[in-house]
Amino acid sequence: MSSSVPTSVDPGKLREVMDGRWAHIRRDARENLRDPDFLPVYGETMQEARERVTRAAKKLADSGRVGLGFPKEFGGEADSGASVISIEMLAFGDLSLMVKAGVQWGLFGGALELLGTRRHHEEYLRDVMSFDLPGCFAMTETGHGSDVQQLRTTCTYDPATECFDLHTPHQAARKDYIGNAAEDGRLAVVFAQLITQGKNHGVHAWLVPIRNGDGSPCEGVTIGDDGPKAGLPGVDNGRLTFDHVQVPRDMLLDRYGQVAADGTYTSSIENETRRFFTMLGTLVRGRVSVGGSASSATKMALDIAVRYGDVRRQFAAPGEDREIVINDYLVHQRKLLPALARTYALHFAQNTLVETMHDVQTAVHVHGEQIDEEAQRELESRAAGLKVAQTAHATATIQMCREACGGAGYLQENRLPHLKADTDVFTTFEGDNTVLLQLVAKGLLTGYRDAFGSLEGWGKVGFIADMVRETVLERTAARALIARLVDAVPGVDDVPMLERGWQLKMFEFREKHALEGAIRRLRKNSTTDGMAPFDMFNDVQDHVLKTAQTHIDRVVLEAFVAGVDRTEDPAAKVLLDTVCDLYALSTIEADKAWFLEHGQLTAARAKLLTATVNQLLKELRPHLITLVDGFAIPAEWKAARILEEEADRQEAMAARDAELRTQNGEDTPQGTATDLEVAPAQ
Amino acid sequence: MSSSVPTSVDPGKLREVMDGRWAHIRRDARENLRDPDFLPVYGETMQEARERVTRAAKKLADSGRVGLGFPKEFGGEADSGASVISIEMLAFGDLSLMVKAGVQWGLFGGALELLGTRRHHEEYLRDVMSFDLPGCFAMTETGHGSDVQQLRTTCTYDPATECFDLHTPHQAARKDYIGNAAEDGRLAVVFAQLITQGKNHGVHAWLVPIRNGDGSPCEGVTIGDDGPKAGLPGVDNGRLTFDHVQVPRDMLLDRYGQVAADGTYTSSIENETRRFFTMLGTLVRGRVSVGGSASSATKMALDIAVRYGDVRRQFAAPGEDREIVINDYLVHQRKLLPALARTYALHFAQNTLVETMHDVQTAVHVHGEQIDEEAQRELESRAAGLKVAQTAHATATIQMCREACGGAGYLQENRLPHLKADTDVFTTFEGDNTVLLQLVAKGLLTGYRDAFGSLEGWGKVGFIADMVRETVLERTAARALIARLVDAVPGVDDVPMLERGWQLKMFEFREKHALEGAIRRLRKNSTTDGMAPFDMFNDVQDHVLKTAQTHIDRVVLEAFVAGVDRTEDPAAKVLLDTVCDLYALSTIEADKAWFLEHGQLTAARAKLLTATVNQLLKELRPHLITLVDGFAIPAEWKAARILEEEADRQEAMAARDAELRTQNGEDTPQGTATDLEVAPAQ
Repeated sequence: MSSSVPTSVDPGKLREVMDGRWAHIRRDARENLRDPDFLPVYGETMQEARERVTRAAKKLADSGRVGLGFPKEFGGEADSGASVISIEMLAFGDLSLMVKAGVQWGLFGGALELLGTRRHHEEYLRDVMSFDLPGCFAMTETGHGSDVQQLRTTCTYDPATECFDLHTPHQAARKDYIGNAAEDGRLAVVFAQLITQGKNHGVHAWLVPIRNGDGSPCEGVTIGDDGPKAGLPGVDNGRLTFDHVQVPRDMLLDRYGQVAADGTYTSSIENETRRFFTMLGTLVRGRVSVGGSASSATKMALDIAVRYGDVRRQFAAPGEDREIVINDYLVHQRKLLPALARTYALHFAQNTLVETMHDVQTAVHVHGEQIDEEAQRELESRAAGLKVAQTAHATATIQMCREACGGAGYLQENRLPHLKADTDVFTTFEGDNTVLLQLVAKGLLTGYRDAFGSLEGWGKVGFIADMVRETVLERTAARALIARLVDAVPGVDDVPMLERGWQLKMFEFREKHALEGAIRRLRKNSTTDGMAPFDMFNDVQDHVLKTAQTHIDRVVLEAFVAGVDRTEDPAAKVLLDTVCDLYALSTIEADKAWFLEHGQLTAARAKLLTATVNQLLKELRPHLITLVDGFAIPAEWKAARILEEEADRQEAMAARDAELRTQNGEDTPQGTATDLEVAPAQ
Repeated sequence: MSSSVPTSVDPGKLREVMDGRWAHIRRDARENLRDPDFLPVYGETMQEARERVTRAAKKLADSGRVGLGFPKEFGGEADSGASVISIEMLAFGDLSLMVKAGVQWGLFGGALELLGTRRHHEEYLRDVMSFDLPGCFAMTETGHGSDVQQLRTTCTYDPATECFDLHTPHQAARKDYIGNAAEDGRLAVVFAQLITQGKNHGVHAWLVPIRNGDGSPCEGVTIGDDGPKAGLPGVDNGRLTFDHVQVPRDMLLDRYGQVAADGTYTSSIENETRRFFTMLGTLVRGRVSVGGSASSATKMALDIAVRYGDVRRQFAAPGEDREIVINDYLVHQRKLLPALARTYALHFAQNTLVETMHDVQTAVHVHGEQIDEEAQRELESRAAGLKVAQTAHATATIQMCREACGGAGYLQENRLPHLKADTDVFTTFEGDNTVLLQLVAKGLLTGYRDAFGSLEGWGKVGFIADMVRETVLERTAARALIARLVDAVPGVDDVPMLERGWQLKMFEFREKHALEGAIRRLRKNSTTDGMAPFDMFNDVQDHVLKTAQTHIDRVVLEAFVAGVDRTEDPAAKVLLDTVCDLYALSTIEADKAWFLEHGQLTAARAKLLTATVNQLLKELRPHLITLVDGFAIPAEWKAARILEEEADRQEAMAARDAELRTQNGEDTPQGTATDLEVAPAQ
């Protein structure tokens, strides 16, 4: 619950609490990441963009900012968290460069490091880090994107030659959308079904040269170009087809599965499915980076739209001479402020996720500890969930910001078109959001599922409500704080809505109830005669995905609450507390029907909820600029002409207005904010 | 209420009822609009796109398809409706061409015809129609978009020279986003404040030469280029600044206001505000065309996503060998089918709107009748409302379709990126959607407002519920049919949800209640001491816009209901009836919270509503392809490679699958639809 927000809040204090554990990385980027090649350029052809971004990637490598996640002995910092934060900062610049960097040092370099072994590192890592060896992460196939286990490319071992035969059996199995493939890539990490001694051991990865020194494709490799895309013109996405390419045995990235000279397969992880998921699990960093980058782009869009809305005027106030600044309109605030609140919430959640990821990965890859499977599974679920939340929020918010800037928002020179087009693929790459939501849901249902091994077994499970309670709660790091806040409110009925405990209870109740309902319905379906197993699941799919969504919302709220709690500056704390109220209440408001349906809101309280949200908008309106200042985006990074021009323009116009009025007759028509007519335009 | 849908429905029968009054125009376009220059080209530079589109515009002019709306004596057909339908059909092709045509023949040519008089027509119309005289519609200014009355450009008459002095007083008054300005335009219709004899008579329009024969700017005219935009690369949007440009007296488009040689101003419409709105009102066709074009683009996107989803497979069914076609997933259906249903609904509403527009405009401009002000006002409100509905639906639906196609949806070769980027400006041009919603709301509140002249008077108005009832009902052409259906259901409580009368009642109730609430709250604010007039309004802005939204929803539903009623083929009728159910119920479902809050749904019925929508999805699933076939888009227009390739690819993959399985060992991991893992990708 917020007390009233002080008139003036120092945005530097917001920045301090938001910068978190890797503040030094953020600071360094703000101060030193200043090459114009790192900023978007408007009106480039695809070829120009590709060339600039390739050049920029090399400069970035030279700056030493790309090695943070790699082992120290190869010149890195072995700092997994820093590598993600570094990508998040890069995402304030040209997103093509961010994705190119993500491909080279995150996906390609990361797979080489994490799936490969010492000989691979020694041979290649330095050149990967310096960008002297540009590479690809060749997993996705045209016919199989999110379903990696079903990849159709095969890699079959022949003891006679001690080589694998890498082959694309048909066009649907060609590797597609592969970054660095169309132009720069020389080596690729290729994922395929490993077959040896007549048996398929599932998906593994190999290092495969795809281009010779002169740029020509290697023997048996056909390289296609995905051509122009919606955005990311600087990333050379392409297609790879392999026609019985011979891959030497030692090019198998063999940390999790080895093939001896005679073709004998060995692995420290006997169960094939577990092995597969372990391999994929090491690659979680890419997903965390995409989510964080989506949030950076969202902040940039909000920064532009909020500043523009604070000077742009439209329609005169009735009975007054002044024209209204568009940020003063309730409906404009309804667009900007809940989006801002959610952006803050996601920022804190992302910080928490990066910390968790860093700790889990450091334990295994730096300190050599055993994988803590439960922690790893939770990390993957969180990463999936937050990637969904951040990328969906980016898509919606950048679209809203572009519309909030009217015609100016449609011009490339004002950046929003690039932000929209470049981030648009984020909702479907690094895992399609719908599929990822399902992954999150699966995690929530795991306790039930594991005991029975398959969906068909569900019918026999005795439904135990307490287990659900346990599954849902006991999750985020802030649990003691959350429990205290929840326990402070008696129920849900007559509690003030600005009471944090009430908000938390509402989020918790919804998640638990959704999960219980999903389980109940799955169970019912599994006992329905004649229902095909697919239909048992499909019938409940919307409900299952909702469960995941409610879970993510709660995790995000708890992270935000913990972030507010950590804030030291009193004024900043009150402001953040109010923003947190807005996140919580606008999230509940967006799903008001559910809370009404399930008896958690009466009709009267539902109306009060809307009134309370509107009240919060009023309280936060004076702090709009402070809230975008809190993102601490250096002015040189913004590359939006309206931010440079608009202030001057408005000043000139105001001066001219007085003049024009003197010229006008008495009955000059004056459009007012309540008396609207609208221009056709082109 | 629908009976069960027959197994097979002839899409030709759907097309028949959808084609409506201008079926011959649609047929002609489908058969003859085949120039490859009319289709989008992927990977063009802005310059290439501009050149192609200029070439295409000339070809279009030569085809004779652009004159439909112009007077017969200049070679046109004086068929206002046909001109809009013709633009809708063009919008299945390259949207840059549609917008370029809209600028040349809709806005520029339309203003010249409708605001000008005989001498302007005789001098210019033929060259406008042939595209030998490309022109601009220069209304919007950098500082004033939707608020046309506030334009800052001045045009001051000097009897000594018998010329107007056209002047841009400051940068915020420059004309901006003007199509045809950056390269092609030679003449412009320029909107400015008319000042004569020291008095401002409000906004009028002039014909102003902006480029000489050699392409150089005319004296005093500065031309800027808006440069690359999010989309529409083929449209050369630019900026015009006038430095005391001398405009001869007879270049004033003087149908509604004349200036005599001595500077005396005359007009047949004395009231300045009424004159202004009358002038703007003649230009409604542009808004109707944008809405219709948005719907064409939406149909194209749905056609692509639905066909792709019918062959693309993802994850195996549990316990089975087959992989699931993505259209079979409930959540995918939840995305595609309500969007399809709304697209159908909007199609019928647009047809009705075009008919109304045609009849109103033909009466005045062809038969020379007096303007029926009430009919004109209703037309403008409908045009504004449907433009909002169609463009907002296009933005949301094309985005959804792009995501539904995954990585393939991000490649330009599959068209969705162009559809998204090109239509993105539709929500803010031809009137910003938020401002247009307010215009619609104003129309609904008009009965109250007119009696008191200003918002401040509201406090004194006695609130009469019956007047509201009258305002809300008695509106669409289908009123008798609607009344019959509504009267057939007794209440709202125990009525089956597939009863059409119940659906209509819910829409009606919501609209009336929202309107009454807005009035009540405005009235209360107007009696609140110390509340500034702007705040009286702003406090209720969200509520006022909701009123407009609910009104549009009802108008659309009634048009759909009438369309179903007109359908003759019994199978097509049942299918459309079911689609209409889905439109109605998914619209109610999207605003379920409101109906719960206002006692129109119990919690139990709210849950039943969701179940009923899911049931409709199941019923309509087998007809997905038929429903996009009903749009009757010629295959050559689609320009999406996935539609050509996907079928072949899936066939090859299925064949290969059997082979691969034979090679695999027993315990091959098989991803299933309920056991998901997801690939990182780039």
